[in-house]
Amino acid sequence: MVSCFIEKDKKTPIYKQLYDFYKEEMLNGNIKEGTKLPSVRSLSQTLSISKNTVNEAYQQLLAEGFIESRVKKGYWVVPNLEYLPDTKQEVLQEENKTIAAKEFTIDFQYGDIDLEHFPMKTWKKCLQDSLQENDKEILLYGNKLGSILLRKQIATYLYKSRGIHCAYEDIVISAGTNQLVRTVISLLQKDKLAVAMESPGYDGVKNTFLTEGCMIVDIPVTADDGYDVQALKSSGCNAAYITPSHQFPLGCIMPAAKRLELLKWAEETNAYIIEDDYDSEFRYEGAPVASLKGLDRQDRVIYAGTFSKSFLPSVRISYMVLPKKLLENLHEGFIDSQNASPIFQHALALFMEREHYERHLRKMRKIYKEKHEMLLSSLNEYMGGFVNIIGEKAGLHLLINVENKQHSQLIEAAAHQSIGIYSTASYYSNKSVDDCPIILGFGGLTLHKIDEYIKQLAKVWFN
Amino acid sequence: MVSCFIEKDKKTPIYKQLYDFYKEEMLNGNIKEGTKLPSVRSLSQTLSISKNTVNEAYQQLLAEGFIESRVKKGYWVVPNLEYLPDTKQEVLQEENKTIAAKEFTIDFQYGDIDLEHFPMKTWKKCLQDSLQENDKEILLYGNKLGSILLRKQIATYLYKSRGIHCAYEDIVISAGTNQLVRTVISLLQKDKLAVAMESPGYDGVKNTFLTEGCMIVDIPVTADDGYDVQALKSSGCNAAYITPSHQFPLGCIMPAAKRLELLKWAEETNAYIIEDDYDSEFRYEGAPVASLKGLDRQDRVIYAGTFSKSFLPSVRISYMVLPKKLLENLHEGFIDSQNASPIFQHALALFMEREHYERHLRKMRKIYKEKHEMLLSSLNEYMGGFVNIIGEKAGLHLLINVENKQHSQLIEAAAHQSIGIYSTASYYSNKSVDDCPIILGFGGLTLHKIDEYIKQLAKVWFN
Repeated sequence: MVSCFIEKDKKTPIYKQLYDFYKEEMLNGNIKEGTKLPSVRSLSQTLSISKNTVNEAYQQLLAEGFIESRVKKGYWVVPNLEYLPDTKQEVLQEENKTIAAKEFTIDFQYGDIDLEHFPMKTWKKCLQDSLQENDKEILLYGNKLGSILLRKQIATYLYKSRGIHCAYEDIVISAGTNQLVRTVISLLQKDKLAVAMESPGYDGVKNTFLTEGCMIVDIPVTADDGYDVQALKSSGCNAAYITPSHQFPLGCIMPAAKRLELLKWAEETNAYIIEDDYDSEFRYEGAPVASLKGLDRQDRVIYAGTFSKSFLPSVRISYMVLPKKLLENLHEGFIDSQNASPIFQHALALFMEREHYERHLRKMRKIYKEKHEMLLSSLNEYMGGFVNIIGEKAGLHLLINVENKQHSQLIEAAAHQSIGIYSTASYYSNKSVDDCPIILGFGGLTLHKIDEYIKQLAKVWFN
Repeated sequence: MVSCFIEKDKKTPIYKQLYDFYKEEMLNGNIKEGTKLPSVRSLSQTLSISKNTVNEAYQQLLAEGFIESRVKKGYWVVPNLEYLPDTKQEVLQEENKTIAAKEFTIDFQYGDIDLEHFPMKTWKKCLQDSLQENDKEILLYGNKLGSILLRKQIATYLYKSRGIHCAYEDIVISAGTNQLVRTVISLLQKDKLAVAMESPGYDGVKNTFLTEGCMIVDIPVTADDGYDVQALKSSGCNAAYITPSHQFPLGCIMPAAKRLELLKWAEETNAYIIEDDYDSEFRYEGAPVASLKGLDRQDRVIYAGTFSKSFLPSVRISYMVLPKKLLENLHEGFIDSQNASPIFQHALALFMEREHYERHLRKMRKIYKEKHEMLLSSLNEYMGGFVNIIGEKAGLHLLINVENKQHSQLIEAAAHQSIGIYSTASYYSNKSVDDCPIILGFGGLTLHKIDEYIKQLAKVWFN
């Protein structure tokens, strides 16, 4: 009989120790197929443990198919157990360095938003109220296309604020724009999809298109001339992804004439336009620029919006308005289960229904405007004459070009002082860091910090 | 001069009415390119509104590119505005019927869980504490691969409960298993991917593979003989998706000998196995069955787990343990932004850290065990002799075959009485409803309801 060491003081239950022991011995080939296990009675006596304990271990081995029982005769090791080679690899303990973000003391990263003025108390109340409902729709998987309550609120918001007429049935919710883009690709039948992407443009969506096997054609966008509609027309594409209200990252607004040209192109070539309206809420002169979707009378525009900039990234809620033709394709098979949390969807619907969202937007527009102005004046004060600023009076970022300096060196010099400064090179297809503007995200910084940080940056760069 | 009607009592601000009016007229071609707009002063006098208001409207039209200004001369309609055809479609008001779920008074739908015993108060506390932290990691986008705190908790849990040795760096979090599968496909280079799927098996994941363009080979699974390993070996596949701990939907456990054969197959053919361990927490006799990943010494198993069954579907948190080789491929480009909410991830980490999760699992195992037993005894009492029950003593569902009756008719008869009964046909590739077992989900039903509902169902079916 094999020796089996049971430690009665060990934290692992005794039945588990017994089970582990037998399993290991069988897997290593030390106890071979056809071997009869000691009877429950004899093993319990040998080890001075209860018969129940032995039985429990045997039942587990039985359930997992390591042993088989013959009625009233006992337990045998099953035939044909492949032995496991004993080459268990070391558990990887190092940090996965390709993913880990650097930590800077000062950080102009794009994507941060103002948290200081976030109405946490009101939001918590909406969250509490949602959880209180104890509703299956809220606590289980929820509607596949998204909470109907939230979709109704979004439809109302889009009508009032973005000039878009749609019903809640036209709206699909998801956890992030990339997810929406994947759904669009499915709906458009990706094998045939050639997508015109702004260059520079949002790299996240571009990666999604590429990962999904779509063809990509770069359409040049410049700060001076904007979107190159001629390039689009001769691209042969059947879909275009654009950010007309506030081009990312250049910040320009697509003028009406171009918008109408784009719509005509879509109509004539049976193409679809994905309008990503990621931050149109924040324009600091006049009202937000009207949406392209609002002009779309042939139903060729897929409108995508998000709460990541205007509310809170961590609720992970984005949405899109789909043209009728695509809605028809949207049957069960096309759509995964809903990835956005039904709890947050419901809480956000309450937040909007109670008019907190509009109030929040008004407040934040004011706050970001001040930050935007502070950034401009700080850049002027500490770097005036050395930098060119690119971007409309909108959004949560600005671009700068620094004259007579290599941008790569500037970014490195800043990093050396633990100041996070980022290139827009990843938004271009084939440009070096030195040829691309620098992006300054200011959404998450306080007024005081903006001034202080630009001052420090100027010291690093120009002293 | 065109006539423009301003309603001062209207809720729409006057500048907006003016802007809307001009925009519409230009888009309809009523005000043509090159037309000079009235001066700010004259229009303000004509309409008896302030110059600021007129100016605001003009500035918006200017920003959106409908008009252009010539210094000190005024505003002109820009050239080349395409007129919009006036064919605006009706807003779709009907329900999207392909998606809307039917509402039954009595529902045996699979996927519902017990909400009555969910520790809402404790969970709310964890949520409150998470929001309290006001941490950027929690309120913004968070770590792309998932909260490190949560991944550490999962690693500990997997070691203690599933026999899996892994570091948090091996774990990737996502909002739902489909999302994880998409990431896996990217990592495995989908052009070459032929996936062996259990038949019957989970249709959601199958759809994801198909949507992503993977080849699918069905591997037969039967309640009596389990998984057909020979079919796998001759399939030519380089990946397999399996549910070894509790086959979905049949409920069988894959025995040790087959597990080892599968691992050998993966090693010899350089294939990967995706182990979906969706509900292994709930086994009602003995401990949960050990995981396949725990036997995996060649690092060929991708282990996928979820909190949808064991905690709450609406937190939308799933995870996987990746083999080292695949982790190496997991660089920025391969991974979208994190779709699972950083807030819920953090709150769940707290919930686990404070040992609520283990307690919750223990409690729920007991509760589901009672429900499972109730379902068995009700089936026996009211339908004994008419139905065959398929499934191990585990999970939140059972399958039944009703003798000498057409399943399609039974489902229809039940629906007629507002009782939701579902076929497993969608889990098979090419089988009619009559040839497939019926699935009874019982997770969301109380003990009393289980008894009552089966009684009513028996009346509908056998009276």
